[in-house]
Amino acid sequence: MIFQIKMLKQYSVKIIKNGVKMFSSTSILRSESQLAWNTPHLAVGSAKPAIDPNKVYLYNMRFCPYAERAVLSLMAKNIQFENININLNFRQKQKPEWFLEETFGQVPVLLYKDNIIPESLIVCDLIDELFEGPKLYPEDPMEKANDKVLLAIFDRLRPSFFKIVWSSDQDAKSVAYEDLCEKLKPIEEEYLKRGTAFFGGENPGMLDWLMWPWFERLPVFTHMNLPVPHFPGLNAYQQAMWNTEPVKKYGLSADEHFQFLKQFSDKTTPIDYDFLIK
Amino acid sequence: MIFQIKMLKQYSVKIIKNGVKMFSSTSILRSESQLAWNTPHLAVGSAKPAIDPNKVYLYNMRFCPYAERAVLSLMAKNIQFENININLNFRQKQKPEWFLEETFGQVPVLLYKDNIIPESLIVCDLIDELFEGPKLYPEDPMEKANDKVLLAIFDRLRPSFFKIVWSSDQDAKSVAYEDLCEKLKPIEEEYLKRGTAFFGGENPGMLDWLMWPWFERLPVFTHMNLPVPHFPGLNAYQQAMWNTEPVKKYGLSADEHFQFLKQFSDKTTPIDYDFLIK
Repeated sequence: MIFQIKMLKQYSVKIIKNGVKMFSSTSILRSESQLAWNTPHLAVGSAKPAIDPNKVYLYNMRFCPYAERAVLSLMAKNIQFENININLNFRQKQKPEWFLEETFGQVPVLLYKDNIIPESLIVCDLIDELFEGPKLYPEDPMEKANDKVLLAIFDRLRPSFFKIVWSSDQDAKSVAYEDLCEKLKPIEEEYLKRGTAFFGGENPGMLDWLMWPWFERLPVFTHMNLPVPHFPGLNAYQQAMWNTEPVKKYGLSADEHFQFLKQFSDKTTPIDYDFLIK
Repeated sequence: MIFQIKMLKQYSVKIIKNGVKMFSSTSILRSESQLAWNTPHLAVGSAKPAIDPNKVYLYNMRFCPYAERAVLSLMAKNIQFENININLNFRQKQKPEWFLEETFGQVPVLLYKDNIIPESLIVCDLIDELFEGPKLYPEDPMEKANDKVLLAIFDRLRPSFFKIVWSSDQDAKSVAYEDLCEKLKPIEEEYLKRGTAFFGGENPGMLDWLMWPWFERLPVFTHMNLPVPHFPGLNAYQQAMWNTEPVKKYGLSADEHFQFLKQFSDKTTPIDYDFLIK
């Protein structure tokens, strides 16, 4: 418990930028449990790991927001699984042959009992329906459908996020930033309307785990002279999410995300997926 | 029953093109039950229909493959619903104001008990989980996930379908056609492997209703001097699907689909959504 409180203090540093108080995770320190995720990303030429059909495996990539959805869902349901990091570099054709043969070439992929299940939303639905543990989606079908609609609304900010991160044109960045803030408005409204710590209630639900990876990455904007979007509800929400066990154990800091994302601006140098363990 | 057999005869006409025997639905005749769907598409300036929160409504567009998924699922579960056709013409800004205000501007949208649910996959999941009647998705979570994976594989042929239909370049059409046939191969393999009349077993399941709208439209290729893709399993499958009650009652012929789709090649003339009732 003392460990948890210490971690919280590290996460809850606030910074002031352009007069706006923002939550930042840039000062996060790696705990032992986080280091466990940072195994080398298997690349072309690597041997396919031995797979026991009775165990759960996840093909993952440490910085992939889609794969993070599956990791957080598995952790939220307390499912033991083997994490296999994959080098997804396609420009230099680094994806392992065996990975390309049996998947769409993307992560997450869940392996269990000789089934190979790709696509984050399919994987997360499966995790919730197949395994014991707390139900992550609402039991009521209409509530569940409304959560999926909110996710569809939220998902519309993803193109803006990547434009902000990858565009070399500062004007294009600014337009995308305004657009992203606009698209966060209905999410803020819904959060305040629900009036609970998480979208799922007093505990995070599936909607929280599906949206979180993008919330976790919003602080990278501070590396681009843009503030983290300021919404009182959602800023409190981000803090609450950093206090959950799965995010404490798996979340990465803005510095780490930025260090990964900035590599994509140089199209000739191979992406280094393993810089966290060097 | 006699009526059904008569309908079957109309559907089962085969044509020979380029030496390939193909199933065609071009000779389909409209039955009374089919005509009931062809109500005018409400456009800009129209009054919003009165909505009774205790009834199920569907915002639909008669030629939309995504909305058809919802129609077929509702029919498969014997759910009574009110069909509201919407004019989706965006070039001439024909979408009703009230429709744009409360939705993403696309169909299907299911309305029930003051909930407004868009997106075909969300709507179909909801239909299956909320309403009584035969379960359309497999009860086993892993089987369900595998069906969703097959849908994701199938969905990858959609861009090729639209290129074949809309490209003015005959070479581009041919390349897209080859690509589409390639993408149908794993679907054929899976169909033969399952060895049942439908992907869902001896009765159609959700996977059948979700994929069908594109199968229904494959015969439009005959209007472009391209054969309907020839796969022994899938051709038998198409015939079996035309014999199901929902497809009999809602399916459109290749002529009708082509008459609708060809309108998009002329970017200046407004799309006529109501030609079936003129």
